[in-house]
Amino acid sequence: MVKKDMEIVKKYQKEMFLLGRANALLNWDQEVYMPEGGIKGRAEQSAFLSKLGHDRATSNVLFTSLKKLMKSRTIGKDKVMVDKLYKGLCKSRKIPHSLVEDLSRTTMIAGPAWRKARKKNDYSVFAPYLQKIIDLKIKEAKFLGFKGHLYNGLLDDYEEGMTVEELKPIFEKLKKGLIELLRKIKKSKKYGKKLKLLGRKYDAEGQKFFVEDVVVRMGLDMKKSRIDLSEHPFTTRFGVGDVRITMAYRDDPMFAFLSTVHEAGHALYESNLPVKHEYDILGDAPSIGLHESQSRMWENNVGKGKAFWKYYFPLFKKKFKLSGNFEDWYKEVNSVFSGYIRIESDEVHYCLHVILRFEIELGLLDGSIKVKDLRDVWNSKFKEMFGIKPRNDVEGVLQDVHWSFGSVGYFPTYAIGTMYASQLYNQMKKELKGIDKEIGKGNFSRVQKWLKEKVHKHGSLYLADEIVKKVCGEGLNPEIYLKYLNNKYGEIYRF
Amino acid sequence: MVKKDMEIVKKYQKEMFLLGRANALLNWDQEVYMPEGGIKGRAEQSAFLSKLGHDRATSNVLFTSLKKLMKSRTIGKDKVMVDKLYKGLCKSRKIPHSLVEDLSRTTMIAGPAWRKARKKNDYSVFAPYLQKIIDLKIKEAKFLGFKGHLYNGLLDDYEEGMTVEELKPIFEKLKKGLIELLRKIKKSKKYGKKLKLLGRKYDAEGQKFFVEDVVVRMGLDMKKSRIDLSEHPFTTRFGVGDVRITMAYRDDPMFAFLSTVHEAGHALYESNLPVKHEYDILGDAPSIGLHESQSRMWENNVGKGKAFWKYYFPLFKKKFKLSGNFEDWYKEVNSVFSGYIRIESDEVHYCLHVILRFEIELGLLDGSIKVKDLRDVWNSKFKEMFGIKPRNDVEGVLQDVHWSFGSVGYFPTYAIGTMYASQLYNQMKKELKGIDKEIGKGNFSRVQKWLKEKVHKHGSLYLADEIVKKVCGEGLNPEIYLKYLNNKYGEIYRF
Repeated sequence: MVKKDMEIVKKYQKEMFLLGRANALLNWDQEVYMPEGGIKGRAEQSAFLSKLGHDRATSNVLFTSLKKLMKSRTIGKDKVMVDKLYKGLCKSRKIPHSLVEDLSRTTMIAGPAWRKARKKNDYSVFAPYLQKIIDLKIKEAKFLGFKGHLYNGLLDDYEEGMTVEELKPIFEKLKKGLIELLRKIKKSKKYGKKLKLLGRKYDAEGQKFFVEDVVVRMGLDMKKSRIDLSEHPFTTRFGVGDVRITMAYRDDPMFAFLSTVHEAGHALYESNLPVKHEYDILGDAPSIGLHESQSRMWENNVGKGKAFWKYYFPLFKKKFKLSGNFEDWYKEVNSVFSGYIRIESDEVHYCLHVILRFEIELGLLDGSIKVKDLRDVWNSKFKEMFGIKPRNDVEGVLQDVHWSFGSVGYFPTYAIGTMYASQLYNQMKKELKGIDKEIGKGNFSRVQKWLKEKVHKHGSLYLADEIVKKVCGEGLNPEIYLKYLNNKYGEIYRF
Repeated sequence: MVKKDMEIVKKYQKEMFLLGRANALLNWDQEVYMPEGGIKGRAEQSAFLSKLGHDRATSNVLFTSLKKLMKSRTIGKDKVMVDKLYKGLCKSRKIPHSLVEDLSRTTMIAGPAWRKARKKNDYSVFAPYLQKIIDLKIKEAKFLGFKGHLYNGLLDDYEEGMTVEELKPIFEKLKKGLIELLRKIKKSKKYGKKLKLLGRKYDAEGQKFFVEDVVVRMGLDMKKSRIDLSEHPFTTRFGVGDVRITMAYRDDPMFAFLSTVHEAGHALYESNLPVKHEYDILGDAPSIGLHESQSRMWENNVGKGKAFWKYYFPLFKKKFKLSGNFEDWYKEVNSVFSGYIRIESDEVHYCLHVILRFEIELGLLDGSIKVKDLRDVWNSKFKEMFGIKPRNDVEGVLQDVHWSFGSVGYFPTYAIGTMYASQLYNQMKKELKGIDKEIGKGNFSRVQKWLKEKVHKHGSLYLADEIVKKVCGEGLNPEIYLKYLNNKYGEIYRF
């Protein structure tokens, strides 16, 4: 009986994964190659596959088997799988169909409204849609009925096990530390210098060489991957043997290069997840935050590090005929500047952007912030944290797409991932003696192997924080990240 | 009641089409971009979507609704749709599940066996698999129980309504006419001259220019299409707004150029099929033969014609710095030569390759040809028709992939399409005065519009032969094609 129910559970998961991956290809193709005439048809194809996946996810057959298995003495990995699936299904079954449909209808029109608002540079065009979304997300959070802050049920969708109660003091400590660090940086004589090496156009052909070189050095097997062009870089897995990334060229070569390093970090994680769980939930990452830790460790801790540029700077210098020395280059790659846009932010400002959104989301959920006031709230909070005020809505409250999708609770994962990244990096440096020397020779293979062994291979057998605890001896901790930043930028800005 | 059943019928079709198009993207991607590591996962994804489509196609709900509708007084297009679907379902319901599975299992391993046989250049490696396939196809044909020759049920899968009884005398007339024409050509002093202009390497960059130029002139809207590289050129529709072709470069520029013209002919048909039937059977072409007529009319009648090269030769001459005159070029593009391979064949030999396969398929089905003797049968028949004998199996009996798929009855559609193409071309020239002049100026738009109006817009509301009859006043007729060839090659080879 248990065996039969377990078979049903595995069959349903496999079908969901197969549909999900076919759908991922529909989306990938849409971003990368689809002619514009295909949009309408593609939407129908994708919606239909989503529906088939949803039918399976919400099937009574699956739920009945899971309920039986919950009562039986399942052990080991099967138990983790059953618990996880059962928890997820219980969550989604708490939300009435009418609410799901309402949210889906609302976000369908909120996307175009957000784009229109951006075009007009006017938040008020988007506000009514956001109001509806927030109202519905509040309802959703109430139905979920998580302990503690209303936000917890939403946050759990992206960062399983994390709560506002745990996260808030961490973010407060982080915010304080970052603002203090920024104060020191901005006092430095080295601050605010114009870019001399990076502030010009680099040709795409030269950039291409480095993009293709770095992913292979990082350990991406190009027989199981590929790089294509898209407006926004992203990573998709179609199977453990087919994980692809996308990229875009800009004048600034660091955009293509470091966003590729970032995506390749995601891709290595996806490629190294346990093959035997390819078609079940244990073969996925346990949280968005942990996924982000992989991309951000490669992008920031490694990719903006001294050792990394010891290897790459001479090659960049030669390829692009640069005049300038290593110190200048390293400083420019890590130059700190006050900007309005999260995704263009340097390492020091980045988490402040995230904390701003976290605070706003909490306020929207508990009613202390009103949607109609959001432009002003955003701008004054921004001024308070960054010392500058957005000049318009596109560089302010309208900059991110997430809310228009109905994603509330996603933003914190960026900062969680960033902190985890530093914790893992710190631990790796302790364990892998001489790793900087290897990186300095362009040999990154031990980094990849270490991450695979410590993080990737577990899939979602443990929660994100449990994995970090197993590796580093403690869960999420802002101190390590702050220390890393203080050391690095103290050296660059001489304080 | 009728309304409800009709809704069910349309819903099921739409779901099948959506699944089919998602699956088409899985296959397109596999041929064009997929990294090799993706093969295993892709096979599972594709098999699952196929299964979901098959579940719908064979659903009792659909069949019950169709049965009810067959008894009701459905009219107009709905009646054609219901009749077509009902006929198709009755066909497939005649074949026992065990046979379908047996065929699927056999073809699954026959493909690799065929490739292995080709690698070893040894038919005997493939023969046991082919034996099994032929045995199963004979069983299938018996279950179908079509009137007349056993082959009719199989042929009907690709060329609905066509029969051996109708086709055999047509192919005999065609064969006689082609052999007679070849006799005249080979007697000509102009025959057998070495290629001077085409027998060398043309750079891919130059070829690319012409490939991209010609599809636009033909009328392909590049906002609704794209061209990618694949080993074998093919066309796929993901929706009326997204029909893509693929191509490959070889030294000989005519391969890329004319195969693109061929695929663009298919793509124009797919793009012009009736939009309101995008998700039902009436929005498809009625037969493979008629589809092939569109590609072959563009490739042969137009693309190897004088008017076409009046426009393109000066451009080729300039781009590739050719020395030579128009007459030489036109003759080389249309040079007739005895070769072993169907897909490399000239216009005159082409249908003989097809007739050879047709005769063999008939013999295999009625038992007059044995699978074990097929190499010898092929070679002696080839010698008889072409005057030369294949030197090995790869250029003989192992050259086509079709049988390894279990496709028996497909080959005739190539010759049917070729004949239809000339009939349509002949009629077009009568109706569109001055069209050669327009083509000579690189303006092909009236050709496209005429084909859309006469052929494409009907979808499968009529059978292929009915459409040709509506346009040309008569159905399949080899005389028009033979006359076209005699005129054209009589002028080239001076007889």
